[in-house]
Amino acid sequence: MGKIAHDQHVPAIAANRDIVLAATVSRHGEGVGSVPHFRDIDDLIASGLEIDAVSLCTPPQVRRAIAARAIAQGWHVFLEKPPGATLAEVAQLRAAADAAGISLFASWHSRYAPGVEPARAFLAEAAIRKVTVTWREDIRVWHPGQSWILEAGGFGVFDPGINALSIVTRILPRPFFITEAELDFPANRDAPIAARIRFADDTGLGIEADFDFRQEGPQSWDIVVETDQGTLTLHDGGARLILPDGSEAAHKDALHGEYAGLYHRFAEIVRARTSDVDIAPLRHVADAFLRGRRITVEPFVE
Amino acid sequence: MGKIAHDQHVPAIAANRDIVLAATVSRHGEGVGSVPHFRDIDDLIASGLEIDAVSLCTPPQVRRAIAARAIAQGWHVFLEKPPGATLAEVAQLRAAADAAGISLFASWHSRYAPGVEPARAFLAEAAIRKVTVTWREDIRVWHPGQSWILEAGGFGVFDPGINALSIVTRILPRPFFITEAELDFPANRDAPIAARIRFADDTGLGIEADFDFRQEGPQSWDIVVETDQGTLTLHDGGARLILPDGSEAAHKDALHGEYAGLYHRFAEIVRARTSDVDIAPLRHVADAFLRGRRITVEPFVE
Repeated sequence: MGKIAHDQHVPAIAANRDIVLAATVSRHGEGVGSVPHFRDIDDLIASGLEIDAVSLCTPPQVRRAIAARAIAQGWHVFLEKPPGATLAEVAQLRAAADAAGISLFASWHSRYAPGVEPARAFLAEAAIRKVTVTWREDIRVWHPGQSWILEAGGFGVFDPGINALSIVTRILPRPFFITEAELDFPANRDAPIAARIRFADDTGLGIEADFDFRQEGPQSWDIVVETDQGTLTLHDGGARLILPDGSEAAHKDALHGEYAGLYHRFAEIVRARTSDVDIAPLRHVADAFLRGRRITVEPFVE
Repeated sequence: MGKIAHDQHVPAIAANRDIVLAATVSRHGEGVGSVPHFRDIDDLIASGLEIDAVSLCTPPQVRRAIAARAIAQGWHVFLEKPPGATLAEVAQLRAAADAAGISLFASWHSRYAPGVEPARAFLAEAAIRKVTVTWREDIRVWHPGQSWILEAGGFGVFDPGINALSIVTRILPRPFFITEAELDFPANRDAPIAARIRFADDTGLGIEADFDFRQEGPQSWDIVVETDQGTLTLHDGGARLILPDGSEAAHKDALHGEYAGLYHRFAEIVRARTSDVDIAPLRHVADAFLRGRRITVEPFVE
């Protein structure tokens, strides 16, 4: 029951007629009104409360153990992004979910921003020339007190950057891979505060990403795609799509907000008895750490 | 045609009756006797020489582009370890190979060491209590002039360490994942020179790995597995297996050397029109970079 749970999950669950909030769990955070509240998942299990599914919104470093406990209970599991602190643990959760016959959802909320599906549809018909991703935000404004983000396994600037990657992997018609990366680590922290990444695909398409957590003043969450039909721009993390003719498009079936879309999808996969675990965004982040050059930059003090 | 090609691939190919060395390719390295030699893969393609398959022994940073060219020719591809510089590029090569109907082999030579299969068989029947991996070698002795190893994307100490991981992922009966890692980066290099990693599996089994490139004097490539039936030890990178009763086991069908085993397997998958691409060892390395804490250590001068 940290920031994202209160800001997004609780309202989205309240608005979804397929889902009822049965309990909240948090060691430090607050519950919701009169809904039963537990200190940890063991207390929830011990309560005997009937639960069908859990949403896990903890930092990635501690999520796997809780997810494994939930899967062992036969509960469906919704994982906030990123789905884990490592790729191997996500693969293992997927295998455990399949064996238990429950639904596992690796959620990528930015994929449910209203501009994303129309952008994907447009790009399926265009010849793509160049992709530029600019994700620059002020960590002090958006992540106050979330010190885990700059700890090892907290992903640093890839915590927002993985949102951009979840969109780009969705809207581009072909897979791509990192060819070069630079990661800036503050001297006093264990995760990068900025990163510059070049990707390519098999056709030689160039994709450049600029992630920075030190952006004061105007913030940028933009994806610009140059095509043979002109330039497409996704602004505000996928919320606004500007097509080459200057028109703004919104998906006809756009749901009320990204998290409404996520919970709609979660209910859908539970009904269909399937899972939805696309590791591509997380794999790019791991690849950036693996392939990238590390640069030590000035200490970050919140 | 670098060190590993001359030391291992050429003799293993010469000893395999299913495979004939048709050509060698190298920008700087030397060819083999009167076998046609080309400067790069484009020259090989332009020669019109009939080729069924290629073995790629370049550093990982440049391997993908050559592999993609070879797959586009319809050639089967044998990849030295690691199969790529990123996980995404390996996934893409696999997809391209499947689409082209050719065989892709992500080779892990240490899995063909004589002690590995008997260790796997023993551990399938035992309750495992603890696993300790010690891979400490002298980079100056084993990798003279291979400066790419300590460059970004060169894997550093994970270049040998991935051999240990390829064995452990083969001999243990259950998948595991990193819970903690520390990576030592020399102040003047872009890849780690040492790493300490803790893994666990779903049953709570502890696995510890100690990788170090700065080991002078006696060298260690050891895997020790404590079980309910006593302790099993793999020495010398999997070459020697000591079972709990003190006996030394060797696989009955042990091939002459790891690379003989690899080429036997490569011919097998080509005949069977299948691929063999297990990314688990590479995934653990990417996870270590993603999850691990970076420690800057003294500069390394060769």
